[in-house]
Amino acid sequence: MRAVDVASTRDRLLAAARSVVEEHGYGGASVAAISVAAGVANGTLYRHFGSKAELFVEVFRDVCGREVDAMRAAVEQVGQDGRPDPVERVLAPLDVFARRALQNRTLAWALLAEPVDALVDEVRLEYRRTYRDLLVGLLADAVDAGALPPQDAGLTAAALVGAVGEALVGPVSPRAEPASGTDDSLLSGLRDVCRRATGAPPRGPDRLPQGDGDRR
Amino acid sequence: MRAVDVASTRDRLLAAARSVVEEHGYGGASVAAISVAAGVANGTLYRHFGSKAELFVEVFRDVCGREVDAMRAAVEQVGQDGRPDPVERVLAPLDVFARRALQNRTLAWALLAEPVDALVDEVRLEYRRTYRDLLVGLLADAVDAGALPPQDAGLTAAALVGAVGEALVGPVSPRAEPASGTDDSLLSGLRDVCRRATGAPPRGPDRLPQGDGDRR
Repeated sequence: MRAVDVASTRDRLLAAARSVVEEHGYGGASVAAISVAAGVANGTLYRHFGSKAELFVEVFRDVCGREVDAMRAAVEQVGQDGRPDPVERVLAPLDVFARRALQNRTLAWALLAEPVDALVDEVRLEYRRTYRDLLVGLLADAVDAGALPPQDAGLTAAALVGAVGEALVGPVSPRAEPASGTDDSLLSGLRDVCRRATGAPPRGPDRLPQGDGDRR
Repeated sequence: MRAVDVASTRDRLLAAARSVVEEHGYGGASVAAISVAAGVANGTLYRHFGSKAELFVEVFRDVCGREVDAMRAAVEQVGQDGRPDPVERVLAPLDVFARRALQNRTLAWALLAEPVDALVDEVRLEYRRTYRDLLVGLLADAVDAGALPPQDAGLTAAALVGAVGEALVGPVSPRAEPASGTDDSLLSGLRDVCRRATGAPPRGPDRLPQGDGDRR
């Protein structure tokens, strides 16, 4: 095989695996299903990847890399038309992550929680740290700007990553109970919880009467 | 073998596996290490469990069952001496979970995040739902009592479980970076984030000036 064939077969296997996982999860991504989708013989996969788990790891990295890009782009979008709100910059990437997960539930389940292989779990942990690191800087900026109370930004960032991930696990699970609301109400509720967790001043119905001259 | 011997060998294997996992994580819990600790021959394990992963699942259930008991007991403890504060009843089980995790980091790592086996991941998901269900009722009670703003209790409960789990993953990981604070500061910071996430009225340094007559 020429080098170019090796590369293209490998890429075809990756693209095929991604699309099978997106449609059926890891559970439905047998070597046979991936090989058919890639248009190669069953054994070909093992000439390019040490194991199916190693192929899954590459699919995972590829998909999560796109999520990180989308999250970063969402941060940049905030305040394009004016002065960026530092709290909105913290919430935007969480919002976009949740929105994309609900639009692609099988893939989100595969990324977030589908039981699969220890190798994939390692990469899951790695990407959760990446998401956290993205939030740490945004939280620190918002604290510096006086928009959020002083706090351990690393701790809050980890808590936000965990909160969003866990709140989505139920809804994207293939065994999801019938949803109690729409996707929009879930996204808006999740945004409220995250906003509150950062310590941003509550607004609207979120706010409890304080009983000390707080009501106008 | 008499039935009583079967039961006691099985129990010895479970206890041995639990103690090896507690000290070395799943990664250090080889069949050989478990067999030595249980005082049985290497092959004995497979007469009582289908695989090492199946034994891990039983260890996991056993340990998580104790966590759930401790969390329930913490809820009962709140307000033993007076009128129970509904928000404290939500925070108490999270607090006790976090405290116990920091006291037993290797075991906490094994429970929360150590990459191991899809079978164990299944039980992880199951227990996260159990933790969530425990919180849902407490949150709903606090909303009914007017101590928390109206909210989707299931969503907040899942977010709290995720927040606490993820905030602990870093500190209990064997590759933990040097902590930026003490365990007490972590516990207190985590309590603040969780409290805020529920929408409980902020108190003390948590509170931002509102600029509308809120300051006395």
